[in-house]
Amino acid sequence: MPLPAEMARVFTEEKIDFVKRSDLKAEELLPCYVRLRMPLAGNQNHIGTLYAGALFTLAEIPGGALFLTSFDVQRFYPLIKEMNLRFRRPATSDISVEARLDAEEIERIQNEAEREGKAEYRLALQLKDADGQVVAETSALYQLRKH
Amino acid sequence: MPLPAEMARVFTEEKIDFVKRSDLKAEELLPCYVRLRMPLAGNQNHIGTLYAGALFTLAEIPGGALFLTSFDVQRFYPLIKEMNLRFRRPATSDISVEARLDAEEIERIQNEAEREGKAEYRLALQLKDADGQVVAETSALYQLRKH
Repeated sequence: MPLPAEMARVFTEEKIDFVKRSDLKAEELLPCYVRLRMPLAGNQNHIGTLYAGALFTLAEIPGGALFLTSFDVQRFYPLIKEMNLRFRRPATSDISVEARLDAEEIERIQNEAEREGKAEYRLALQLKDADGQVVAETSALYQLRKH
Repeated sequence: MPLPAEMARVFTEEKIDFVKRSDLKAEELLPCYVRLRMPLAGNQNHIGTLYAGALFTLAEIPGGALFLTSFDVQRFYPLIKEMNLRFRRPATSDISVEARLDAEEIERIQNEAEREGKAEYRLALQLKDADGQVVAETSALYQLRKH
């Protein structure tokens, strides 16, 4: 069973101290779809834009957030295997990300993990500023593992 | 002129709040060479190993730390353009990284940035646990810009 929305929010925002300290916000947590926001305040780098580590975190957490809203959290758990980031322009506002996995893909991943003990899934994301401009493009490879 | 060592340490550990909150330690800051350590305590993920965002930070900061110890900090400043990470095994201890840039490469980068306004440099790093095992391999592309 996936987690109820409020529990998924608490896990996404507060389960990992490193993430909690960034004040990442889970704005929408639905089956197959999440939207997250990383505040600029408190996360600025040496030139006043959003630090790259905060952008990484914003790009990495959707894999876990989608896991919580969409996968059987009692049978499986996710790991990250790879992450590639291209920083396109300075992030001068809060930055948001949307991530989707369709129901057929989720079923494929869970069936494979049930059968093989593990299954991979990839999320390619665009991180956008308040004007909708892409500040970074990311591609992450996750592995779903059976408990 | 590069920064004096104590000033480079303060800038590396404390200039960016996001980094300061992780308690990253600059263990050695020399011209052409830096060694940094990310503590596990306070940075664990949902399974008790070092969160990927802390590994990213440990891999990203050497580019800036080498800038501080080795480049003319009054004429130039660094930006990150790309970062690729491969997570090889769970990080179950504090994690360390060493980074080097040789003097000829630093001169090449600064001369190019002086002439063109910007110059790129790449750092390929191995993040290692307390036993010397590689937990992640990273490759970052930075850009040195002229003020």
